[in-house]
Amino acid sequence: MTPPQQGNSLSLVKLLNLDHVGIAVTDLDAALERYRERYRVEPLYRETVESQGVEEAMIPLGGSFVQLLQPLDADTPVGRFLERNGEGLHHVAFAVASIDLALEHLKETGAKLVDESARPGGRGTRIAFVHPGDLTGTLIELVELSHG
Amino acid sequence: MTPPQQGNSLSLVKLLNLDHVGIAVTDLDAALERYRERYRVEPLYRETVESQGVEEAMIPLGGSFVQLLQPLDADTPVGRFLERNGEGLHHVAFAVASIDLALEHLKETGAKLVDESARPGGRGTRIAFVHPGDLTGTLIELVELSHG
Repeated sequence: MTPPQQGNSLSLVKLLNLDHVGIAVTDLDAALERYRERYRVEPLYRETVESQGVEEAMIPLGGSFVQLLQPLDADTPVGRFLERNGEGLHHVAFAVASIDLALEHLKETGAKLVDESARPGGRGTRIAFVHPGDLTGTLIELVELSHG
Repeated sequence: MTPPQQGNSLSLVKLLNLDHVGIAVTDLDAALERYRERYRVEPLYRETVESQGVEEAMIPLGGSFVQLLQPLDADTPVGRFLERNGEGLHHVAFAVASIDLALEHLKETGAKLVDESARPGGRGTRIAFVHPGDLTGTLIELVELSHG
């Protein structure tokens, strides 16, 4: 039998939602204008996240977002991604109830992490990245939404 | 003034939801087992979609899915993607109310399409792909969910 405490913890590490898809762009204004023209959608807000070296815009779509990311300069993770790959899908972000428990569980199961502990994201969230080498070549962001 | 009919049509071409993120994988069983171990999530179903040359598994996450795509053979779109890029993010899919009206609007605004008209997708959906060269280097799938 699974001890109740472990059962509770495991239910807390389960992914809750596809929070957003992050797309690297060279020109945020142009990308937003094109989304508006083609698909009649508008960003809920724009935000500069200095710690990640990006200006980002979040377009709400149902319970998820498209996140457009323009690097603040070339020597940033998204700037280097654009240099290597050009514009395109950069990462996928999943919401979790507790990012600390999720990171603990990932370490216990041997995951290859970018961030060993949570750091501040946009929207008052706490985030951590999991290395693309861990699962299907995909850079995964875990997001704990703010409870404020 | 915008004629009422055009206004109605435009509201029907607006994106409604981030339906899924498609990820190309070489080994569907291994990818599902890793998702289970790391993130405690399970596929709702698996399906072979001959017309797209893939076996796919859909993992529900809130109102969206992670779609894992294993090519049926190397000479398929996903097979060629894997050959070029390895495993990773392949496309993002948005739900629309009417795929016919969405395609009509995309043509009117000069979009670069992969599919000029809708074709059958998984889950009884109707789908069409928009070329990555049209918007932020991203292969976009439009999905009209079945009303059955």
